[in-house]
Amino acid sequence: MNMDRYKILVGGEVVESIDRYTSSFDFDKPIAKYAAKVMLIHVANLVKKGVLEKSAAEPIIRELLEVVESDGEKLYQWTKEKKRMFEDVFEALELYLYDVVGPSAGYIATGRSRNDHVAAALRLYLRESVLSMLRKLIQLRRILLEKAVEYKDTVFPFYTHTQLAQCGSASLYFLTYEQSLADIFKVFEIALSLLNQNPLGSGASAGAMLPVDLDIVSRGLCLSVDPLPPYYSTGSRLFLLYLLSILSLLMAEIGRLVEDFMLFANAFPQGLEIPRHHISTSSIMPHKRNLVTLEIARAKVSRVLGLFAGSIAIYKSLPYGYNLDFQELNSMTFEILKDVDETLDVVKDFIAGLKLSSEGIKKYLEGKPCWSSDLIEYIAISSKKPVRELYAELARALQHYFSGDSEPLKNFLARYGLSEENLSSIHKLRPFEKILDDVIDRSLSRLSSDEGRVEQLFKVLSSCNEMLIKDIKQL
Amino acid sequence: MNMDRYKILVGGEVVESIDRYTSSFDFDKPIAKYAAKVMLIHVANLVKKGVLEKSAAEPIIRELLEVVESDGEKLYQWTKEKKRMFEDVFEALELYLYDVVGPSAGYIATGRSRNDHVAAALRLYLRESVLSMLRKLIQLRRILLEKAVEYKDTVFPFYTHTQLAQCGSASLYFLTYEQSLADIFKVFEIALSLLNQNPLGSGASAGAMLPVDLDIVSRGLCLSVDPLPPYYSTGSRLFLLYLLSILSLLMAEIGRLVEDFMLFANAFPQGLEIPRHHISTSSIMPHKRNLVTLEIARAKVSRVLGLFAGSIAIYKSLPYGYNLDFQELNSMTFEILKDVDETLDVVKDFIAGLKLSSEGIKKYLEGKPCWSSDLIEYIAISSKKPVRELYAELARALQHYFSGDSEPLKNFLARYGLSEENLSSIHKLRPFEKILDDVIDRSLSRLSSDEGRVEQLFKVLSSCNEMLIKDIKQL
Amino acid sequence: MNMDRYKILVGGEVVESIDRYTSSFDFDKPIAKYAAKVMLIHVANLVKKGVLEKSAAEPIIRELLEVVESDGEKLYQWTKEKKRMFEDVFEALELYLYDVVGPSAGYIATGRSRNDHVAAALRLYLRESVLSMLRKLIQLRRILLEKAVEYKDTVFPFYTHTQLAQCGSASLYFLTYEQSLADIFKVFEIALSLLNQNPLGSGASAGAMLPVDLDIVSRGLCLSVDPLPPYYSTGSRLFLLYLLSILSLLMAEIGRLVEDFMLFANAFPQGLEIPRHHISTSSIMPHKRNLVTLEIARAKVSRVLGLFAGSIAIYKSLPYGYNLDFQELNSMTFEILKDVDETLDVVKDFIAGLKLSSEGIKKYLEGKPCWSSDLIEYIAISSKKPVRELYAELARALQHYFSGDSEPLKNFLARYGLSEENLSSIHKLRPFEKILDDVIDRSLSRLSSDEGRVEQLFKVLSSCNEMLIKDIKQL
Amino acid sequence: MNMDRYKILVGGEVVESIDRYTSSFDFDKPIAKYAAKVMLIHVANLVKKGVLEKSAAEPIIRELLEVVESDGEKLYQWTKEKKRMFEDVFEALELYLYDVVGPSAGYIATGRSRNDHVAAALRLYLRESVLSMLRKLIQLRRILLEKAVEYKDTVFPFYTHTQLAQCGSASLYFLTYEQSLADIFKVFEIALSLLNQNPLGSGASAGAMLPVDLDIVSRGLCLSVDPLPPYYSTGSRLFLLYLLSILSLLMAEIGRLVEDFMLFANAFPQGLEIPRHHISTSSIMPHKRNLVTLEIARAKVSRVLGLFAGSIAIYKSLPYGYNLDFQELNSMTFEILKDVDETLDVVKDFIAGLKLSSEGIKKYLEGKPCWSSDLIEYIAISSKKPVRELYAELARALQHYFSGDSEPLKNFLARYGLSEENLSSIHKLRPFEKILDDVIDRSLSRLSSDEGRVEQLFKVLSSCNEMLIKDIKQL
Repeated sequence: MNMDRYKILVGGEVVESIDRYTSSFDFDKPIAKYAAKVMLIHVANLVKKGVLEKSAAEPIIRELLEVVESDGEKLYQWTKEKKRMFEDVFEALELYLYDVVGPSAGYIATGRSRNDHVAAALRLYLRESVLSMLRKLIQLRRILLEKAVEYKDTVFPFYTHTQLAQCGSASLYFLTYEQSLADIFKVFEIALSLLNQNPLGSGASAGAMLPVDLDIVSRGLCLSVDPLPPYYSTGSRLFLLYLLSILSLLMAEIGRLVEDFMLFANAFPQGLEIPRHHISTSSIMPHKRNLVTLEIARAKVSRVLGLFAGSIAIYKSLPYGYNLDFQELNSMTFEILKDVDETLDVVKDFIAGLKLSSEGIKKYLEGKPCWSSDLIEYIAISSKKPVRELYAELARALQHYFSGDSEPLKNFLARYGLSEENLSSIHKLRPFEKILDDVIDRSLSRLSSDEGRVEQLFKVLSSCNEMLIKDIKQL
Repeated sequence: MNMDRYKILVGGEVVESIDRYTSSFDFDKPIAKYAAKVMLIHVANLVKKGVLEKSAAEPIIRELLEVVESDGEKLYQWTKEKKRMFEDVFEALELYLYDVVGPSAGYIATGRSRNDHVAAALRLYLRESVLSMLRKLIQLRRILLEKAVEYKDTVFPFYTHTQLAQCGSASLYFLTYEQSLADIFKVFEIALSLLNQNPLGSGASAGAMLPVDLDIVSRGLCLSVDPLPPYYSTGSRLFLLYLLSILSLLMAEIGRLVEDFMLFANAFPQGLEIPRHHISTSSIMPHKRNLVTLEIARAKVSRVLGLFAGSIAIYKSLPYGYNLDFQELNSMTFEILKDVDETLDVVKDFIAGLKLSSEGIKKYLEGKPCWSSDLIEYIAISSKKPVRELYAELARALQHYFSGDSEPLKNFLARYGLSEENLSSIHKLRPFEKILDDVIDRSLSRLSSDEGRVEQLFKVLSSCNEMLIKDIKQL
Repeated sequence: MNMDRYKILVGGEVVESIDRYTSSFDFDKPIAKYAAKVMLIHVANLVKKGVLEKSAAEPIIRELLEVVESDGEKLYQWTKEKKRMFEDVFEALELYLYDVVGPSAGYIATGRSRNDHVAAALRLYLRESVLSMLRKLIQLRRILLEKAVEYKDTVFPFYTHTQLAQCGSASLYFLTYEQSLADIFKVFEIALSLLNQNPLGSGASAGAMLPVDLDIVSRGLCLSVDPLPPYYSTGSRLFLLYLLSILSLLMAEIGRLVEDFMLFANAFPQGLEIPRHHISTSSIMPHKRNLVTLEIARAKVSRVLGLFAGSIAIYKSLPYGYNLDFQELNSMTFEILKDVDETLDVVKDFIAGLKLSSEGIKKYLEGKPCWSSDLIEYIAISSKKPVRELYAELARALQHYFSGDSEPLKNFLARYGLSEENLSSIHKLRPFEKILDDVIDRSLSRLSSDEGRVEQLFKVLSSCNEMLIKDIKQL
Repeated sequence: MNMDRYKILVGGEVVESIDRYTSSFDFDKPIAKYAAKVMLIHVANLVKKGVLEKSAAEPIIRELLEVVESDGEKLYQWTKEKKRMFEDVFEALELYLYDVVGPSAGYIATGRSRNDHVAAALRLYLRESVLSMLRKLIQLRRILLEKAVEYKDTVFPFYTHTQLAQCGSASLYFLTYEQSLADIFKVFEIALSLLNQNPLGSGASAGAMLPVDLDIVSRGLCLSVDPLPPYYSTGSRLFLLYLLSILSLLMAEIGRLVEDFMLFANAFPQGLEIPRHHISTSSIMPHKRNLVTLEIARAKVSRVLGLFAGSIAIYKSLPYGYNLDFQELNSMTFEILKDVDETLDVVKDFIAGLKLSSEGIKKYLEGKPCWSSDLIEYIAISSKKPVRELYAELARALQHYFSGDSEPLKNFLARYGLSEENLSSIHKLRPFEKILDDVIDRSLSRLSSDEGRVEQLFKVLSSCNEMLIKDIKQL
């Protein structure tokens, strides 16, 4: 039996060019494996409920396991041979089963719909994607902390208004991004609680007739046993949009990192050693050192933001319940995940290979009073003078200093028992600089704890996978 | 002393039309109170560290407390009298103190910058905004659950592809949105952990010279004592963007609710009683019933999404450290918060006043086989027949049914021991319908627990407020 | 000689996974043909300027012509054999020439850069895309006008606030979209003036050393001879973003068309005959008639808007001059063009196959006073009574009418010499309805004129193509 | 008679907090004048058609003229006295007329609706806004051309990949932005053809009953006499979105200008003299020179892009016909226009006050081979050597040069009869540099022609204004 007959039965017609427009089969591959897993659980439920004979279930289960193991490849191979178009991976999977096991496959349509199955398969797929991404975030955070340790004694420029503001330990720079990623990690991790919800049994919109054995769902797919309103299960994509919103924030931070290095590469190229394979040069200007990977990363940031804006614009104008627009949401999600994943790899590689040159940075800082606010505060505290007065004094001295006359500055310093030698290290007196070791330690320990949780979650998923196969075999 | 002198000292010039472009003073009002609170803590720190004499601190504290108590009104009143422009509320506050307490105010510039103060004031403001919003979400969820209880026995249409798909208890509809808001509540709540971070002591970018008494910050402002990299404190707005992203998701869900009612009002107007004050009519077409509040809400959804897209587009291209672009982010955030807040009020009022008419809905459903999938599954399970076969049989019967011939349908039903009378209540056999009471109870208990947490947080903040005043008075 | 040596010469390194991230070769295919054309013109210039011997040019020209004729296929075939990665189609093309003609290819790097060549190739590609799209717009406009002619006497509902407002000839509906597309056509067409600018000779950013023979550029590529600042030529993508912005507007209009049919399909399904191959049904709910193509079209609208938002977000934060981010802009542009093109095809097919049923629409309009504003105005004009008074009278009569009592309405009508029979055709008295034929004629004549211009432009481009080959052969 | 009675008549209710949510009156002010003008034309039409007695029209006309002359102030003053809320400026205007001229105002509701009047008033308002903006663009272009003239002999750095690429005359830089604005001018100007369409007579959606005297509309409002489908007139906002899309492109270009100066200020601060009132300094870091106006401009760019994205997201999901969501579109449009207008003023002032220092720039360029591609091409052309070989030679020489050994470079130059002295002026040999005077002249003449058109359009509008008053008085 051919699924086209549905269409035909109800008066539909097939026009290939039009059907191709609505088919998601070509980009459904990432969820093929999960669609098969969900079907396995469904078949187990059917057997338990007596809808499907165990003997009829066996060949179906065997085929589904092969689709899972081949990461969907087996199914896609079969469709190539059939030389026809499929609406989506779910239709293809059902027809595949008809093809290989015969009419008994007709029973598997009971108690399910594409709408609850796609909601389940998507969650499983996204959950694994989130975990992999969390692992990558941990790797990147570790690299940043390693740099924080390595360059603790390297002085580094800190900016406000894209202008040099203060100096400090380069650790501060790396700790800043690590903190940012730790915060993103925290809000990202909670996405898992949305992804663990169980949509199976929700039918097309308001619920299926067949009860779902929650125990089997929970053991085999690691999904929650809490009941979810079926209209929500099938009609919501909050779990997906929340994810995309966090990925957008992550990409925005990467955007800022790129801007930093564009700035650094212009302000103090001599202070940076960029990993060579991240640099390209011009084919006609041999002196160029283009930060090509970062340029692409910067563009990808906006691409992801745009795809997210498009995704939420799709969603916000759909009445509740499943709409086919969701299918396009999937394709946009797959694109975003790919962009973010590749960009994280590139950024990790970039930071890991990055070297700072203390000498180069110091040279850049020469004659630049990145110590001015520290100096004012230091004197204000030690001499109990109001900052505003010191500010005015120093501002006047600096006016001369910039014109080449450093006498007034020297006098200013002398008035408070200081000399020019003190200036370059004055930042080390800041309270934060003094607790750097402690901050790095805390960050490392936070990282270990985050890593522990992620690895634990991987283990849990893996044991559900084992359970799924065990349960299936013991049916 | 006039702050303009800063500018002049360093060679700046004042041109009013240009200065107005960069001034945020007019829209800073929402954070004025929090700026004063942050300043109070700062003054307390200065006294503790011996930078400011207690006697000099007293008049400053008195003024700041008045600014706090008047919700900033006192400061804004003063600036009106001064008839000049201010860069922002922070400059105005400092000049105000100079004006009213004299030169001793010159000491308060020690150990702080506008950058760490604005990061702190913003967090305090946003934290209270988040809590208020969480409370509103709880109210809306309670209203939804009340409707779920009230309309448990009312049949309701559920859609897929914007087409009638299945019927079910109207409770399902209200539970769906409650679930959605409960999920949003969960990811929204975690925003508080980012808002509780303490940025004080971070100076302009890389840290101030004066240590911060974390105990006083934690007691008086309820901020965390964990050290935060100063470049992150002053240069990050993740805490704000995360919030905006959640508000975008919330608004997207409201967008869908609006689309639902636009659809319902066209599909079964007789089944709905819309609260009268949400309806307008045309001034030239007296038969119109325009859902005007929902139309504005729908537009506000896109407005908020647009402002969020703009906010993250600002952020993603800024190198790290404070940039004045953040100021525009604030104004966009205030707009978003206002839009969301008003929209939540309108939606709450709409749902609370909404009434369903069982009769009207039933009339709409007449002759519409929203029971078809239930019927197929019911027979499939009871008669152990494959769904696909039943589907084909029913599809043919329905073709006739739609053309006015209901015999084939009757025959189909009779074949399985059913009659047309069974159809309208067949959805009640679905497992989910049977556990409705249980689901409502669980949802109510989840709501109570969420509410308890929010009210607890309000209490904690309120006790910090008391502590702040107590600590200040006991300096 | 291998181009990798550039990188290596200046200290670069090759790491495949990283290089893949920055390579655009895989998605450059659409511009391959144009890159070869631009190169042909460049080679002709080199020969004219004496930089390249005619004999050395010949094999190069032969190869380039083959790349053009095979639509880039020949080049892509070659790269498959080479089994290596290329930065982009320009690098590949250059290496291809080295490979097939030997060292004389080394001369073609004179007086050009990838930056001016990509700007030129893109313009050529986009110009043809715009023309094809304009042609499709003309086809869709013609279909709409045909429907306007066909359904002139069919009454149709017109909405405000997503609520039935007035009735009128169905022509009005089709004329509305035709007008909208005619306006879009107008602003779209002007994009050509930006696409006709000549960027050749601009070097990498500030200009090449070799003068460009503008005559040959103008004859062979149909580009303008007006000088363009080289930094603008290579550093601007306004010509591309303007296009995307118009495509966004076009898609927004298609979004509205989809919303119309979602509304119509719920309000008066019996009044529409949707082309069968645009409908799908549910695999478990045989009564469903899902407008699947329109759902995908609706999602594509947001996808395109998102990609456009992302594109402009990339652009707005780049300093002037070529940045590699432009490469990502290209890929996003190709995606947008594909989405719009396919969606236009689907919409054309949908409207062409659409049928209205007068009977079905009339049934829907029964008892719905879509004549109310016409009636009030008609009486106001004929009886010289103020509208507001009539409004109040009619509103009261309608209150009764909706409750089943039509006496007050009859009395109201009688008072002004009218009866219920007059109501259903009262809209025909509106001035616009009376000039429908005239409006359709004007629209058809505007369409012919627009079509004439497009076809003329195709001819011009085609004659430039001929000239290019002729000039090349006569070198 | 109070308009609330509409609502009440049809069963509506008034709840102030809810009504405030849907009221646009507070932000309608910019179109108040135009609403009154449209009403004037409408009244003239009513008199001509005999619906309104001339004597009854006179006081109405007098009042409307006063509203026009006071730029809406008179109307807003009146509403303050009334202390009530109004839905929008159209309701207020109608009630105002009732209030001051009495019941004869009841006739003006004939043959019009808020939907066609708002479409007309918006177009008039936007048309004037566009013209003012075009004038500002002309001023900015003139300033840019003046700088191009002034700095023709100043060498300037040109970038690719945010890295110094080539050197050239600073004129090139200013000409680049002038070209960009000239292109934007061109596509902006065509917006006027959409704004000139006449929506009057379109009623609420499908047309009014009263014919419109097109002659009076055309003479008094300068609108086209071509018929516009009424559903398009009232239901489309293409004319507005097209405008916003162009303003987005304009802002994107300003974004790039800002990024340029952020880069310049870090790369060669000594080469720029930024107008003092555009610079601020830090209150704690007297050495800072923050480009505060540009930072705000940069943020405004994203704000405008966000508001535009929000606007088109509103629009794309509305079924045709007027929806109240359009009201929110208006408010977003007013915000965008204000942001763009202020930003253009700031940018004009910035560029006008900007000074370049030849000395400073030269110092920056010392030791930076921005002549490399020119040199290679120069030798390639003069010595007929392949570029790729020269590239390799020069690349090797530069490797040494950067390490402090300039011998290999000298040898390389000597080999081709050149010396280091030639390098700094080699860019002057580029063809484009040689035609700079000509390009500036052409640009000036294009500017004059554009300016002429804009001033002509102002005159036309002004004569329509006069005609409106004359026609009205001669009724």
